Amino acid sequence: MNKNARILGIDPGLHITGWGILDWDGFHLKYITHGTIISLPSDNISERLSNIFKKLSDIVEKYAPNEACIEDVFVNRNPISSLKLGMARGAAICCVGVCGLQISEYKPNEVKKTVVGVGHATKDQVSMMVNMLLNCGNIKLDAADALAIAICHAHHKKLYAVIE
Amino acid sequence: MNKNARILGIDPGLHITGWGILDWDGFHLKYITHGTIISLPSDNISERLSNIFKKLSDIVEKYAPNEACIEDVFVNRNPISSLKLGMARGAAICCVGVCGLQISEYKPNEVKKTVVGVGHATKDQVSMMVNMLLNCGNIKLDAADALAIAICHAHHKKLYAVIE
Repeated sequence: MNKNARILGIDPGLHITGWGILDWDGFHLKYITHGTIISLPSDNISERLSNIFKKLSDIVEKYAPNEACIEDVFVNRNPISSLKLGMARGAAICCVGVCGLQISEYKPNEVKKTVVGVGHATKDQVSMMVNMLLNCGNIKLDAADALAIAICHAHHKKLYAVIE
Repeated sequence: MNKNARILGIDPGLHITGWGILDWDGFHLKYITHGTIISLPSDNISERLSNIFKKLSDIVEKYAPNEACIEDVFVNRNPISSLKLGMARGAAICCVGVCGLQISEYKPNEVKKTVVGVGHATKDQVSMMVNMLLNCGNIKLDAADALAIAICHAHHKKLYAVIE
């Protein structure tokens, strides 16, 4: 793992995919940007998934992150939801791979514990802590989740650096 | 729907993705080609999914299908399997979308009923009927399933043509 990194965090969903980018120099987090990708249920599924792929490709091209991370989702939900979420995750991870990046996965309670301090924090608590840690104003929940994953990844890099 | 079509059928899986291509002129099916895309569990998930995406892109570029179809999967399975299958489906459908094609979905029993005549046919029965209908030799199960989906799509086009 590089000590210096530009990290892309992704929170995929078939309807809304949140994303956020931050820099990590081994000591400090620096907020770069964030956003959401919306896809319409009225579109054909191939258009919805390629929309996620194309918009994420544009983001990778524009901001040139060298590391990417995503939440390792709950599987304690119904199979239809898992399948839909799986498809959005598939489009997002596949895009990251086509752009030449590997992806790191973190469990939801690992992300919450890193950012808020407890594994069972609410979405609002996560959002509030992300805004506080990155000093980046009021961010929508999906993008805040994506930035929280990126913060968790940076934290893991810090731990690895100490171990090495 | 066009009466004449080159149809790409896809049977996605995280480990093995089967695919097959056939032509349909409104009366006859003509086998073109088929194959499987294998991804290794030892690779990072972004490499596995981008492998499906890239290989399918090459196939679309080489054989220029103008219609694509996929099985609308069972959801009566555990959420972990659904999530994995969803990711492979996501990469495949997303690729079809990026290539500018829409995708049609058919339920497994619909595919079996069209090809074998009964909705509860075994994989071997489907494979045997695909080989008989397309006269294309002994085809591996995953690719035979993909061709079965393409046959089902052609059959639906025939029905639509009658209705129109």
